[in-house]
Amino acid sequence: MMDRPLQLKTLLWRAERLFGHKQIITRRDDGYRRYTYAEFGKRVRRLADALNRLGVRTGDRVGTLGWNTDQHYEAYFAVPCMGVVLHTINIRLSPDQIGYVIEHAGDSVLLVSPEQLPMLEQIRDRLTNVKAVVVFGDGPPPTTALGPVYGYEELLADADEEIEFPDVDEDSPAGMCYTSGTTGEPKGVVYSHRSTVLHALILCLQGSIGVAERETYLLVTPMSHVNSWGMPYACALQGASLALPGTQPRPHHYLEIIEHARVSVCVAAVTVGMLMRQELESGRQSYVLDSLHTLWLGGQAPPIGEIRWWQQAHGVHVCQGWGMTEASPLLTFTTLTSQFTDLDDEGKFRLLGTQGQPMPLVEIKLVDDHGEELPWDGKHAGEILARSPWVARAYYHDTRSQDSFAGGWFHTGDVGVIDQNGYLSLVDRVKDLIKSGGEWISSVDLENALMGHPEVREAAVVAAPDPVWLERPIAIVATNSPVASDDLTEFLREKFPKFWLPDRFVFVDEVPKTGVGKFDKKLLRQQIAAGNNHSTDKTP
Amino acid sequence: MMDRPLQLKTLLWRAERLFGHKQIITRRDDGYRRYTYAEFGKRVRRLADALNRLGVRTGDRVGTLGWNTDQHYEAYFAVPCMGVVLHTINIRLSPDQIGYVIEHAGDSVLLVSPEQLPMLEQIRDRLTNVKAVVVFGDGPPPTTALGPVYGYEELLADADEEIEFPDVDEDSPAGMCYTSGTTGEPKGVVYSHRSTVLHALILCLQGSIGVAERETYLLVTPMSHVNSWGMPYACALQGASLALPGTQPRPHHYLEIIEHARVSVCVAAVTVGMLMRQELESGRQSYVLDSLHTLWLGGQAPPIGEIRWWQQAHGVHVCQGWGMTEASPLLTFTTLTSQFTDLDDEGKFRLLGTQGQPMPLVEIKLVDDHGEELPWDGKHAGEILARSPWVARAYYHDTRSQDSFAGGWFHTGDVGVIDQNGYLSLVDRVKDLIKSGGEWISSVDLENALMGHPEVREAAVVAAPDPVWLERPIAIVATNSPVASDDLTEFLREKFPKFWLPDRFVFVDEVPKTGVGKFDKKLLRQQIAAGNNHSTDKTP
Repeated sequence: MMDRPLQLKTLLWRAERLFGHKQIITRRDDGYRRYTYAEFGKRVRRLADALNRLGVRTGDRVGTLGWNTDQHYEAYFAVPCMGVVLHTINIRLSPDQIGYVIEHAGDSVLLVSPEQLPMLEQIRDRLTNVKAVVVFGDGPPPTTALGPVYGYEELLADADEEIEFPDVDEDSPAGMCYTSGTTGEPKGVVYSHRSTVLHALILCLQGSIGVAERETYLLVTPMSHVNSWGMPYACALQGASLALPGTQPRPHHYLEIIEHARVSVCVAAVTVGMLMRQELESGRQSYVLDSLHTLWLGGQAPPIGEIRWWQQAHGVHVCQGWGMTEASPLLTFTTLTSQFTDLDDEGKFRLLGTQGQPMPLVEIKLVDDHGEELPWDGKHAGEILARSPWVARAYYHDTRSQDSFAGGWFHTGDVGVIDQNGYLSLVDRVKDLIKSGGEWISSVDLENALMGHPEVREAAVVAAPDPVWLERPIAIVATNSPVASDDLTEFLREKFPKFWLPDRFVFVDEVPKTGVGKFDKKLLRQQIAAGNNHSTDKTP
Repeated sequence: MMDRPLQLKTLLWRAERLFGHKQIITRRDDGYRRYTYAEFGKRVRRLADALNRLGVRTGDRVGTLGWNTDQHYEAYFAVPCMGVVLHTINIRLSPDQIGYVIEHAGDSVLLVSPEQLPMLEQIRDRLTNVKAVVVFGDGPPPTTALGPVYGYEELLADADEEIEFPDVDEDSPAGMCYTSGTTGEPKGVVYSHRSTVLHALILCLQGSIGVAERETYLLVTPMSHVNSWGMPYACALQGASLALPGTQPRPHHYLEIIEHARVSVCVAAVTVGMLMRQELESGRQSYVLDSLHTLWLGGQAPPIGEIRWWQQAHGVHVCQGWGMTEASPLLTFTTLTSQFTDLDDEGKFRLLGTQGQPMPLVEIKLVDDHGEELPWDGKHAGEILARSPWVARAYYHDTRSQDSFAGGWFHTGDVGVIDQNGYLSLVDRVKDLIKSGGEWISSVDLENALMGHPEVREAAVVAAPDPVWLERPIAIVATNSPVASDDLTEFLREKFPKFWLPDRFVFVDEVPKTGVGKFDKKLLRQQIAAGNNHSTDKTP
């Protein structure tokens, strides 16, 4: 067989040649911008040429700090197709973490949303490798103390739309992304052309989300994290119309876009689904949503009540997958196979509430504490191990967590049961993490930071249920002398993203411990969930 | 990313673990045999173990001469998953050609349908590399003069169903198949694990045939040629139910299976579709076909009249692809993209009559006689060049036709036009070939053979339109003295497959020639199509 590499430029070729008339629609402050894949392709080549003129070369990293916009989408193709690595930076990371990942990745150019500039100025001393900053948007770049700065459109205006992209080795890096919420600094995952193309193909398969030419997809899931779940690539592959919510969108914007662009499939974090529901139930505004038939909610498991509500109130099918940054992200997807055709609605909702079956080319297994494989019987719970051509084999230039990749399998840190049909249900986590609005928060990191405060003797951070974010961190703290919650919040603020900061501090004389002297988080979680605690602002 | 190879055992794992309850249904002389993918997986491992005990080792070739049966399907997985090459031998080749391909591939074991044994005895002296013959079917093997012979089931009975398949390099060979109808001996094409897995994925995509778990597929297209268009692998990947027509099926059998197994998608050569239509129109028997919604017809272009008839008479959607042995086979597929939703029926039939758009990861271009690229304007006709990870880069141990792979593109020998949306329409062939019932016949080979007859002075072979086979060869012959058609047929019989033999011989004083002295085949085709010739049995 020919050794044609799996490479992203083949997807772009297809979008341009077969689906040049299909549209990409982006919400802007002043309305919507629409253009076609034909125009998109030309702008992609202009951006690549412009980056080349800025000195970006094969193997370099280009960082992005952006929202879901047409310009960000252009970078999704221009950067990897020119043989450069697209490093999407999660805009929810703290300035400190953003400085760390830009430095660690060695980004040579940054493409950034204008409101990120003050933050970048703050971490200026960490941008030593950055040769240029390109500011997304239409106008000239705002005044900034940062080094050479260019406006995105002025840069494209002078560039060549006829350049040819080189063939690349399919194992060469196409993109990278840092995980958040694990202990210590973020860890980088590098995606290859091969893994990205395969993952895009899988998204177009019958039995997964099944990206199809006839649909219009609203991508709420951020382009700044894990490739927006690979959807930008799958949509180009199939020539599907794409709707992008633009800069700093609010829940009502999503609903307005669905109506305006006649969106048929919306892809979003579970929390976003819940916020859209709140907006709809508030009755503040009316929306025509008859085009919408599917809502892919991910990041964490959608409650069955949400699945039921969307089906019953709007005839919208809710599906979910399970995945992670290390897995591009998708490992499983919920599809009701034909044996369940005759199930009643509640039975179907229950199945849709599982994390579904492994995708093609993904192998999973359950293991006990000793690494012994456990049966798929819907009863035995164990850590889930996965392997696939789109699962990482290591973190980028990082020796931490090598155990996570031991034995050729990725140890996901999630605990689940699998039934005899291969439907996975998550039941717990091996690691002590909180998942809030689809993003990880490390309780261990928060605890260590809090115990670095001169007055804090003990600190345990656990997840409390939350109607919107599903989980929020609560800190249980024992102090030597009275400390105000606000002081502790301020103390943490410089170290962590805003969404990591605990919602409440519960002050206790001593944090309860297990038999071996560890914080008894299980008991604490139960107490918090039962409201069985005093949540004072200060120690008494 | 992990370097997990794309390999067929991953598909088998999925079929067994997720879809172990789904069924494979095979027509037998005494009814139908049904079993599940769970049982299938065990039998696949038994077959692999049995072949291993026969001395088959990594890299060896195992040939099959079989119909579409469950046992043949087992070989489709057992052989490649053990690291051995599945060489499917087209049962329509002549004994001479079969001897050639067994020898050329170096098959060490043959799996054969019992009625093939007399033919194999005939070519016994060419089986020097063959260590064992395994006979498909239930009973002990028939008495034969061939070397060690085993019954398929007795071999499996003693074998182990718990063996583990090794990981294989994804570029290692999984299967091979010889093209027919080109000048000279058949030429071999080797499929890798990688190309076979990618091709299977593509068949499951929205916008292609879209193999889905909920469907039941009837595979009429032979497992003995080009992997039954890759469908056996795609169906396992998705856990789709499979119906197989068994040994020596007739058109009424296909319709009976559709009714019995509630088949929803039938995959067959265009000729088979026409034979099924004839059977239905004859009214000899009544069939319940309400489960059938799609007919994928291939091998050559289905006439629009056929597409229309199936839609109007049975509500069955006809789709087609374009491909070839060298391309695994699929390169393009007809899907009506959303821009054509509002077309009237005739407009849709016209589009469905094209060969469709290139599949994902397939690139095509049109070139003129000088290799210059031609525009996609629906007007310029040129040879179609293709490249893809599932297109061959060369023939197997064969220096002929290296030009077909010049410049990193496969030169398909088909001439077409492509419209601005990427829909391909075939208009001619570069090479002088006849396509009959989906298989190639080389007019040049027939002419050379005929002109080897002592009394034949000139011979030209051209295609005549045929209601069932679409094209059939007609020989225009000038002889020195009267010769009977039957004598010429007998003269050709030993050299060519039966279906190559010309339907008629037209005797002329001189074959008409073009200005440069070549046989004027264009004129001959026109005369034949117009019935404007005398088709005598003998020279006057």
